[in-house]
Amino acid sequence: MQGLIAKFKRNDTNAMKKILVLGAGRSASSLIQYLLQHAPAENWHITIGDIHVGHLQSKIAPLDFAEAIVFNVHDEAQRAAEVNRADLVISLLPAIFHIEVARECLQQEKHLITASYVSPEFRELHEEAKSKNLTILMESGLDPGIDHMSAMAVIQRVQGMGGKITSFKSYTGGLVAPESDNNPWNYKFSWNPRNVVLAGQGTAKYIKNGEYKYIPYHQLFKRTDELYVEGYGHFDGYANRDSLSYRAHYGLQDIPTMLRGTLRRIGYCAAWDVFVQLGLTDDTYDLEGVESMTNRSYLDAFLPPAASPDETPQQRLCRYVGIAPEGEVLEKLNWLGLFEETPLGMTVATPAQVLEKILVGKWKLEPGDKDMIVMQHLFEFELNGEQHELTSSLVVLGDDEVQTAMAKTVGLPVGILAKLLLQGKIDRRGVVIPIYPDLYEPVLEELKGYGVDFVEVETVKAAH
Amino acid sequence: MQGLIAKFKRNDTNAMKKILVLGAGRSASSLIQYLLQHAPAENWHITIGDIHVGHLQSKIAPLDFAEAIVFNVHDEAQRAAEVNRADLVISLLPAIFHIEVARECLQQEKHLITASYVSPEFRELHEEAKSKNLTILMESGLDPGIDHMSAMAVIQRVQGMGGKITSFKSYTGGLVAPESDNNPWNYKFSWNPRNVVLAGQGTAKYIKNGEYKYIPYHQLFKRTDELYVEGYGHFDGYANRDSLSYRAHYGLQDIPTMLRGTLRRIGYCAAWDVFVQLGLTDDTYDLEGVESMTNRSYLDAFLPPAASPDETPQQRLCRYVGIAPEGEVLEKLNWLGLFEETPLGMTVATPAQVLEKILVGKWKLEPGDKDMIVMQHLFEFELNGEQHELTSSLVVLGDDEVQTAMAKTVGLPVGILAKLLLQGKIDRRGVVIPIYPDLYEPVLEELKGYGVDFVEVETVKAAH
Repeated sequence: MQGLIAKFKRNDTNAMKKILVLGAGRSASSLIQYLLQHAPAENWHITIGDIHVGHLQSKIAPLDFAEAIVFNVHDEAQRAAEVNRADLVISLLPAIFHIEVARECLQQEKHLITASYVSPEFRELHEEAKSKNLTILMESGLDPGIDHMSAMAVIQRVQGMGGKITSFKSYTGGLVAPESDNNPWNYKFSWNPRNVVLAGQGTAKYIKNGEYKYIPYHQLFKRTDELYVEGYGHFDGYANRDSLSYRAHYGLQDIPTMLRGTLRRIGYCAAWDVFVQLGLTDDTYDLEGVESMTNRSYLDAFLPPAASPDETPQQRLCRYVGIAPEGEVLEKLNWLGLFEETPLGMTVATPAQVLEKILVGKWKLEPGDKDMIVMQHLFEFELNGEQHELTSSLVVLGDDEVQTAMAKTVGLPVGILAKLLLQGKIDRRGVVIPIYPDLYEPVLEELKGYGVDFVEVETVKAAH
Repeated sequence: MQGLIAKFKRNDTNAMKKILVLGAGRSASSLIQYLLQHAPAENWHITIGDIHVGHLQSKIAPLDFAEAIVFNVHDEAQRAAEVNRADLVISLLPAIFHIEVARECLQQEKHLITASYVSPEFRELHEEAKSKNLTILMESGLDPGIDHMSAMAVIQRVQGMGGKITSFKSYTGGLVAPESDNNPWNYKFSWNPRNVVLAGQGTAKYIKNGEYKYIPYHQLFKRTDELYVEGYGHFDGYANRDSLSYRAHYGLQDIPTMLRGTLRRIGYCAAWDVFVQLGLTDDTYDLEGVESMTNRSYLDAFLPPAASPDETPQQRLCRYVGIAPEGEVLEKLNWLGLFEETPLGMTVATPAQVLEKILVGKWKLEPGDKDMIVMQHLFEFELNGEQHELTSSLVVLGDDEVQTAMAKTVGLPVGILAKLLLQGKIDRRGVVIPIYPDLYEPVLEELKGYGVDFVEVETVKAAH
């Protein structure tokens, strides 16, 4: 009880609040902008720590309420000292580094916000955080984050009216905006390329009509569903690894159909499947002889022997993975330069690392390029004896290659939640994700002002 | 030097030698028989330790030079006490338990023989074993074991004549003998079913015409080579995971083509590939709702939705994995009862564990059934300006479902090496595999007396 009173005193609204932001990479730009904008009115001091902060220091130097510091998460003394100075820590570091930061926050009794998944390690911190009256707010970005918030807004509204949700499918994609879409893959990188290359590894698990379903990785990009978003056309969706564990969080324990997935433009998945079939996305071993490899010899290491002496590598590939000899998939592969004798310029690499390097050279957001976030929830529910279908869709476009839609949708909800937490408006303690109305309602409301706004279409399907 | 003298004294040929055999499972029967036969003449005392020894105790009770004891490898005190009483330890326990046994042997300065691969953990024991004048003899069974020995016999003979080996492919299969072959898979289990279910997971790596090649697991059973063994017909061979690391052991560092593989009867691999394509061999997660599953609902969890309401599961499977609707592959799957509503009778299981249970019920060696070991080495070499092809083939048939060909070929080389070691005829120390003439020559010679004899066919292909 005394600890509680001490905490409230510390949260006195007149006192300056210190925020430590860890990680100033690509997806942090909108968060940092949001925090800097609100700092004077909220009486915040912002410290931004990253291993590379050069690009920030000139921008931040004129501000007396902010600073950028070189921060090494592995430097224990620095970690302890910087966390000690903060009232709230926000970490956008790679997810593997969060647990060290969290332990430091617990030790020093500081709140923490991240945009990453609650790992089993984090789950174990729940009781300690709760007992210390601390909030570790996770899954607070886009996906996970806005997906939870916007889904829960619909779920709780439907359930509040007495409706019963029978099917919930939810898809998110980080894509390129139509006006900047000028390659045959209809894709550019707006976040960590490595995660794109490794996406989907493992087995996708979901439930459909009351039956559990499993899709192994090597079938994942073949088993897509087609979706349509008004004004933006058609997309392919493939299943995420875990669609089951959120049933409990969402209060949908007994839902017959639930699937979470990822969106790509039509045609992307069929072409990506070629990489999977060949084994190019394998990150578990180092290739031999990488130093003398070219794009073409890299590809060749995964192809079977030629059927005849004059069979070209293209023909060999098409025969092996079962794609049309002159089709769109082969066009996409050709466009990447996979058949060219371009030296890789690497010394040690897994197949996935080589593929990432080839893709990064081709799928980069160019100056002025806009990215695009697309999210769509598809609900079916029974209400008053009628079958309803409700689609809730979000499209966010980036401003340019820095203020991306990805950075906005990851960073803004984190920033808004940080503001709410420092204003004392969040009293949930422990390890928390934003599935509660007191968290998601103010966030979704404020996000609308930034163009992050869902469009709902509801149809009554048939009498029950 | 004093330790060396002490060791030689201990190895005095008049003194009784005590052998501790750990593991009395299926593959130990021939080893135990060999040791018991030689014990009186060699003045051995044999202790056979296994967690289940009931079947052995009645057989061994009349012998005053042998005993069977209940042995638990996790019982530290028992492990220490039994190793202490022994002069030589032979472990046929599952490979994961060997390292504990090996550490105990090092601690107490006892020799050790196993039929398992030298793992990185074992490699680290080499210097200590050497400094203590101890032999840890590994890879001394069939595969690894006889494969190394018989290959090295050819390699060193060819190299001794001044020949240059340009290609070496080596395949081994544990199969069912033609006279006991009465199922459409032409396969029965003669060793650990779990290993058969998980076989090939990872990526197969080999070298062909100087180029490294990689086959991911989901392509492995499609990319087979056909082999022929005189008198026994045709077989399919698929590549093992690691064909590269033995180049150094075999003295073939610069060989352009090298591949190690596994043999199955024609048609088996195409049908097994269906399991791989579906994801049935995945051992990384537990299925949901196993307690109420049947063979058919298990299969259904991996199938895509029906294309039409009247599409049968068989049709759905054929469409999904691209097999003929009335073909031999589907016949094999039908024969296993995969489409039947037979309850699994399990509570917690991975997909691979369910598959194993279904297969064990169908692929059991029945009383009187004979198994069959097939091994084939295919060499190409240049000698005196000519291109030679040399094929060295081995077929061993089991006597019955207990004295299997598998038990013979795993156990006899281990037994022979044990005899040589106790006779003081092996002076290699450290972690050793049988790739040296002083080890493999006497073993291969004695094996002939047990019908383990290779047939060589050599042809001169063309002038160079």
